[in-house]
Amino acid sequence: MSNLPPKEMSLHDQIANTIRGLTMDAVQKANIGHPGMPMGAADMATVLWTKFLKFNAADPKWPDRDRFVLSAGHGSMLIYSLLYLTGYDMPLDEIKQFRQWGSITAGHPESHLTPGVETTTGPLGQGISNAVGIALAERWLATRYNRPGYTIVDHHTYVIASDGDLMEGVSHESCALAGHLGLGKLVVLYDDNHITIDGSTDLSYSDDVVKRFDAYGWHTQRADGHDPAAIEAALQAAVAETERPSIIAFRTHIGYGSPNKQDTASAHGEPLGEDEVRLTKENLGWPVEPKFYVPDKVLEYMRQVGAAGSDQEANWKARFAEYEQAHPELAAEFQGALHGELPDGWDEGLNDLFEPGKSLATRVASGTVLDFIAPRIPYLVGGSADLTGSNKTRPKGADHLSHHDFSGRYIHFGIREQGMSSILTGMALHGGIRPYGGTFLVFSDYLRPTIRLACMMELPVIYVFTHDSIGLGEDGPTHQPIEQWMSLRAVPRLLTFRPADATETAMGWQIALDNMAGPTALALTRQGLPILDRTKYAPAEEAARGAYILNDADVPQVILIGTGSEVHIALEAQALLAEKGIGARVVSMPSWELFDAQPAVYRESVLPTNITARVSVEAGVKVGWERYVGPDGIIIGLDHYGASAPYLELYRNFGLTAEAVAEAAMEVCERVEL
Amino acid sequence: MSNLPPKEMSLHDQIANTIRGLTMDAVQKANIGHPGMPMGAADMATVLWTKFLKFNAADPKWPDRDRFVLSAGHGSMLIYSLLYLTGYDMPLDEIKQFRQWGSITAGHPESHLTPGVETTTGPLGQGISNAVGIALAERWLATRYNRPGYTIVDHHTYVIASDGDLMEGVSHESCALAGHLGLGKLVVLYDDNHITIDGSTDLSYSDDVVKRFDAYGWHTQRADGHDPAAIEAALQAAVAETERPSIIAFRTHIGYGSPNKQDTASAHGEPLGEDEVRLTKENLGWPVEPKFYVPDKVLEYMRQVGAAGSDQEANWKARFAEYEQAHPELAAEFQGALHGELPDGWDEGLNDLFEPGKSLATRVASGTVLDFIAPRIPYLVGGSADLTGSNKTRPKGADHLSHHDFSGRYIHFGIREQGMSSILTGMALHGGIRPYGGTFLVFSDYLRPTIRLACMMELPVIYVFTHDSIGLGEDGPTHQPIEQWMSLRAVPRLLTFRPADATETAMGWQIALDNMAGPTALALTRQGLPILDRTKYAPAEEAARGAYILNDADVPQVILIGTGSEVHIALEAQALLAEKGIGARVVSMPSWELFDAQPAVYRESVLPTNITARVSVEAGVKVGWERYVGPDGIIIGLDHYGASAPYLELYRNFGLTAEAVAEAAMEVCERVEL
Repeated sequence: MSNLPPKEMSLHDQIANTIRGLTMDAVQKANIGHPGMPMGAADMATVLWTKFLKFNAADPKWPDRDRFVLSAGHGSMLIYSLLYLTGYDMPLDEIKQFRQWGSITAGHPESHLTPGVETTTGPLGQGISNAVGIALAERWLATRYNRPGYTIVDHHTYVIASDGDLMEGVSHESCALAGHLGLGKLVVLYDDNHITIDGSTDLSYSDDVVKRFDAYGWHTQRADGHDPAAIEAALQAAVAETERPSIIAFRTHIGYGSPNKQDTASAHGEPLGEDEVRLTKENLGWPVEPKFYVPDKVLEYMRQVGAAGSDQEANWKARFAEYEQAHPELAAEFQGALHGELPDGWDEGLNDLFEPGKSLATRVASGTVLDFIAPRIPYLVGGSADLTGSNKTRPKGADHLSHHDFSGRYIHFGIREQGMSSILTGMALHGGIRPYGGTFLVFSDYLRPTIRLACMMELPVIYVFTHDSIGLGEDGPTHQPIEQWMSLRAVPRLLTFRPADATETAMGWQIALDNMAGPTALALTRQGLPILDRTKYAPAEEAARGAYILNDADVPQVILIGTGSEVHIALEAQALLAEKGIGARVVSMPSWELFDAQPAVYRESVLPTNITARVSVEAGVKVGWERYVGPDGIIIGLDHYGASAPYLELYRNFGLTAEAVAEAAMEVCERVEL
Repeated sequence: MSNLPPKEMSLHDQIANTIRGLTMDAVQKANIGHPGMPMGAADMATVLWTKFLKFNAADPKWPDRDRFVLSAGHGSMLIYSLLYLTGYDMPLDEIKQFRQWGSITAGHPESHLTPGVETTTGPLGQGISNAVGIALAERWLATRYNRPGYTIVDHHTYVIASDGDLMEGVSHESCALAGHLGLGKLVVLYDDNHITIDGSTDLSYSDDVVKRFDAYGWHTQRADGHDPAAIEAALQAAVAETERPSIIAFRTHIGYGSPNKQDTASAHGEPLGEDEVRLTKENLGWPVEPKFYVPDKVLEYMRQVGAAGSDQEANWKARFAEYEQAHPELAAEFQGALHGELPDGWDEGLNDLFEPGKSLATRVASGTVLDFIAPRIPYLVGGSADLTGSNKTRPKGADHLSHHDFSGRYIHFGIREQGMSSILTGMALHGGIRPYGGTFLVFSDYLRPTIRLACMMELPVIYVFTHDSIGLGEDGPTHQPIEQWMSLRAVPRLLTFRPADATETAMGWQIALDNMAGPTALALTRQGLPILDRTKYAPAEEAARGAYILNDADVPQVILIGTGSEVHIALEAQALLAEKGIGARVVSMPSWELFDAQPAVYRESVLPTNITARVSVEAGVKVGWERYVGPDGIIIGLDHYGASAPYLELYRNFGLTAEAVAEAAMEVCERVEL
């Protein structure tokens, strides 16, 4: 047998078969992986990448590139193959190191690891939802920055999604919103292969996907996913539709070409096996050897495709240079936004927003902060999952964006917490926007899969979690977070911040906006809290160190550590203890992560080793507080669910009171003396 | 003005207006709550409860009652009003204590608190998804237990759902599966009122709901939600349809009757205000005073409605008595299942399933256990979110259930983790089934909102979480749990269990099945683990105490605490330390909750106060381990995400090795000696 593809094989088929060959060989070499999806999707992807996708392999970060999202992340060899073929920084050796330590070819594509990967996928439903955020960002930026004669933002977002993506609930949330907003430049290629891990989709899935997306207001089509002409025609129609997002249900065959495994679940998640790889290559008319075979003609052509975008990028740069001349301020703002910079002086005066003495819920303080900073950071764009009035997330005068007017900067996400979060991720991925979103802290549970991915991708999303404890009162235990805040502290790279009053809230926003290394979560109260008098207490700026001595005794015998609303309980307890002649230090600890990152000498100054009499108070689970309280200390918290009643009654009935803290402090003082 | 309703007001209107009046007054008295929904849904609910719902107010737990699920839980006054009117154990005084400490009228309905409330709702999307599980349970039980001439399971499940319920992703997951399975006795009344908290649904929502549910294979209708005849006709058509679940989009008006607040968002979540309550009552032709007004005629009629079911229940009991005669074994099994009992001797031999020495992944051991117990517990019914082969959740010989055959006991949930979990909750709520479900541990994040509710409701669901660490290897960080297990430990009332080998896995299942106080989560490995030789080590039965001395030194100087796969690392470290003459105790700690519940004297025997040299090792976040390790100890874990590579390389590169544990042990021994 010749080791060249037959001459009569079309270039399209050669490209698609190259992808199939690389996929089979890489998965076989790793001896673990998902060959079936890339083999089935190779035709769609080939047409998309060679005839539609606008990109420049030499500059994966060109701002106006089309975005390609492989929502079905288990098919990672599809994108790795394409990145290699089109000339991204993806050597063939990396493909040979698929799924190995130190490679950039992880089991599922990771945007922070691999140039050309737009978002980290694998957990199904997330990629397609990120794509909605990317498309939304594109539309918003185009509305804000394009000017007649100067189109500097104008690209499509393409997604390859699987039935798993479409079964996941988050796809419902994000795609319904995409339809509502008419995101016309979003194009989803649905890899309709009728197979999941468990077997035929008949086992669990009989949605009429086209009808479902019709119901969302999408432009819908069906097409043969292995016929290049049909694929091209469908994509053309999708691109021609500008008022609605598009989905094309491409009927494909998983493991395409495999005589014994095509259309089987075993092709989904297992190597085909050496024998079947051979049989498949033979069946496809493809050389069995060498492994990782790439015909010169294919490589040459694909490298041209990968380089074609360099002209487009050059044109874009020229256009942008003209735009800079005509609209220097807008251009500067756009560049700053793209680079994640904040305008000079954006936070000037932020620390003087609040006067001491009054009572103010930290959610209200957060709203005041937003009113203050929103005009200074024009690309701060956010919203709420239908709790605008409760979350206080809408800055004064901010219009909401809608299908026919994207000039607004406020997004009504609907009752779609996870969808919101995944869309925020997409907006951050796109760049040019600092996204934030609000919901109740208890519903952070819905966001966890997306928060985790945002952390992994190091994206500066801001989560505004209000109603952060039993302090929300009457709505009851279903709405009262207990375990949520500690569980968020457990998420690697998430910065958590639970301010004790309005002034710490301002610090929280400053820290959140300055934090470009990952997302930040703010926990804010429903109930009013006294604004601390900073002439009497330590300045709120110290909150940036995560924990600080808010108020000390002359000779502190015991340390009371509080967060958020419970700091005020600690202060009251301090006064009660003073009456009994016991000196207590009150530490406000809004952020564990910031405190743990301080130098040891600072941490020791706040929590000295020799003061082991310590009490923590936080209206949440106790687990974890041992870190700061130590074996002699007492943790005051809640290891059970709340109840429905006015909040002061809840605090009293659940023992979260100054009296209880003072009593615990006396107990630990005695313990320590023994 | 008369304080009687006008004579010409129909009984229907009087009932509906009574509900509206009670709602307005209760919310006004509490000065917080959601009046609009019950006012808008009062007509639908009146028709449903008076003409369709099969129930006996005197026996809220009658097994064959229809289930009524108020998915829009914020409209709690709707169900409280109905429970009071129809004669459940819901005194009017409780309604007057709406949202107060100690009342059974919580802000959102809670099934463990209030008789007649079938499921705890409030977090939107959950109730409707629980209802799918309830309807599924009904169908399964009917298939298993009904016999020709003896229909002992035959009831409907009715849901009132809001647009919020339908926007939530979980509704997509559960309703798509309901359509797939053709749950014909599930009837959803969609309260299509065009209003959310943020305002008009136009802000965020333009789904064609009817078309969407058509796409799921549901029977769909639209009707006027304020016309009793139209409501009745639509419900009749829904009930007549037996092959498909039904949804009726009832056009309603939130805050119905309020001259100034009907059809506004302000009616959703705020008291109407004294003035508007008065105006509304006047507008409805309803007496303004007294508050909490219930016409005698309404109460009398509704109490008859509430008692009507007692005849039906009596008939059912007579039927069941005959069934007991004809099918004594089935009847006994059914009764046992309903009471959550396990057949005698179900666990005999369970502890002898595994022979020491071999290597076996705990997920595989779990599969073996399931093979063993499934035939002994016929009402153990479960499935997987499309990871059957990976989760090992399908017992040998267990058929899957499908639209046309519900005799199977295995459910292919599809790629719908949260939907699965919410459906499992519904199955447990129904009773008669012990439900379990599997997915990867990392995807437990998707389940958290539903796990929390199952904990709150004290439901004995079993979660099978496999691939429980970086030990899953090549799939990479998107699939490697890091923070999940500790975050699950933070959930109140969840019992977590991470076994160290096959024998502990058997214990884990035994504990999970014996635990009727709430859900249990099992964390299981992908990778093989040696089966511990229990003649050499402590017996696996001790795992029931949460933590136990697996292997001790003659004179233990340091304690090594491990969980799951990392127990084996601790054992290796113990050997390394022995070589250096350091005595180490190895503690296997599969369950924090079980250990914390042990008597102090036992806990002290395992972790004696005087041995402060301690090292913990777990392939997850460190936060929380301070509880057992103390200030002198060292926690070996992962405070960062994983990577894609063969798992042994990951363990080595991330410092989770016997050498690292031994080194840490030596370090803490030195520390302690200083």
